[in-house]
Amino acid sequence: MNIVKNELLYEGKAKKIYLTDDDNTLFVEYKDSATAFNGEKKAEIDGKGRLNNEISSLIFTRLHEKGINNHFVERISETEQLIKKVTIIPLEVVVRNVVAGSMSKRLGIPEGTELEQPIIEFYYKDDALGDPLITEDHIRILNAAEPEQVEKIKSITRQVNEELQTIFAACGVRLIDFKLEFGRDKDGEVLLADEISPDTCRLWDKETNEKLDKDVFRRNLGGLTDAYEEIFKRLGGM
Amino acid sequence: MNIVKNELLYEGKAKKIYLTDDDNTLFVEYKDSATAFNGEKKAEIDGKGRLNNEISSLIFTRLHEKGINNHFVERISETEQLIKKVTIIPLEVVVRNVVAGSMSKRLGIPEGTELEQPIIEFYYKDDALGDPLITEDHIRILNAAEPEQVEKIKSITRQVNEELQTIFAACGVRLIDFKLEFGRDKDGEVLLADEISPDTCRLWDKETNEKLDKDVFRRNLGGLTDAYEEIFKRLGGM
Repeated sequence: MNIVKNELLYEGKAKKIYLTDDDNTLFVEYKDSATAFNGEKKAEIDGKGRLNNEISSLIFTRLHEKGINNHFVERISETEQLIKKVTIIPLEVVVRNVVAGSMSKRLGIPEGTELEQPIIEFYYKDDALGDPLITEDHIRILNAAEPEQVEKIKSITRQVNEELQTIFAACGVRLIDFKLEFGRDKDGEVLLADEISPDTCRLWDKETNEKLDKDVFRRNLGGLTDAYEEIFKRLGGM
Repeated sequence: MNIVKNELLYEGKAKKIYLTDDDNTLFVEYKDSATAFNGEKKAEIDGKGRLNNEISSLIFTRLHEKGINNHFVERISETEQLIKKVTIIPLEVVVRNVVAGSMSKRLGIPEGTELEQPIIEFYYKDDALGDPLITEDHIRILNAAEPEQVEKIKSITRQVNEELQTIFAACGVRLIDFKLEFGRDKDGEVLLADEISPDTCRLWDKETNEKLDKDVFRRNLGGLTDAYEEIFKRLGGM
């Protein structure tokens, strides 16, 4: 595609989003910033933007191939991609296959406990409120999404979980949990959006349970880019 | 009933529970202790135990009359009652008719916002975890209750909300929200338990929105027993 990058529309913690000369397409630039704990912990990590852009491009392409529509249009460079313009639904949709992180703390269940079946949790995307866990009743009260959109989101989310589990199992990685975001496109259709990367997934080595995701940064477990490079390499990148 | 009080079984924040000479009956003594914020704020308030025992006895009796089974057996004295022995299900079941308290803070919705329809929330009854909000998936994972029990709990809870709204509307009080607890009796049946009092309900005067509940204590709004006496008086007590 021959798309011209225009002015900055929005700068988030990990990405800059630019308008383009096409009304329905946005230009994304992945940054090297790492943040955790609602922005309380921050760092610049060389190569992180490149790795997340590469990994996310690769995963969204595979999801397209499996018939799961998403906002990804095209990788442009090591750190840049084009996406379809959507209005982001203010929900963080979390899938958990194994207990870890906030769920372990919230419920007092040891990290690493396998769940008999995956669960989907919704968090309200609002930094000022600390992205609280919410129920489907709360989604309705907050007008965050229509009930049919919530059903659509859950259905797509379950499909994504199946595909991601297949993708990661094939390269010796356990998919512990991950976060998705969704948007509404110009026709009001619900579309998978945002990114899928070690920033948004918990990924443990199948043999050693070594963490190959953002917990390396959150918990000071070593080199973040080494972990992300490992994921990229296993996915067939580079 | 001619029941003999035996040894102390359990002492909670607001009540002492004693065994009796009847296997299926417990003896409850309401205390004058007030606590809030997971025990961080504490006080002894003369008359609180009496008022909660009187109000809860009165309300559980009316629920019995309306066909809603519950653990209440008999008022014994100003501060004492007999209840059926149940195994408490570790859930705090919260009904909200109007946004207030933690829901207002959690979702950033102004206190006093009317809900189009009541909602039911579940909190995991665990002091060490701070009684976190949980979803029905979490209830299953925690083995806190069987799915059919959760459905039963929701159904009874909706009935209780209807009855309580009628009871309080008749005496010029708005039922903002309240917390219920449930137990399993010796036959495994789900039974409404615990207490229903200004400790467990948010009750606002219909005309002035004056708070007539534990928020008077939580927020230092004046005399707690004055507010509780007012509720008892309006319910036809004394």
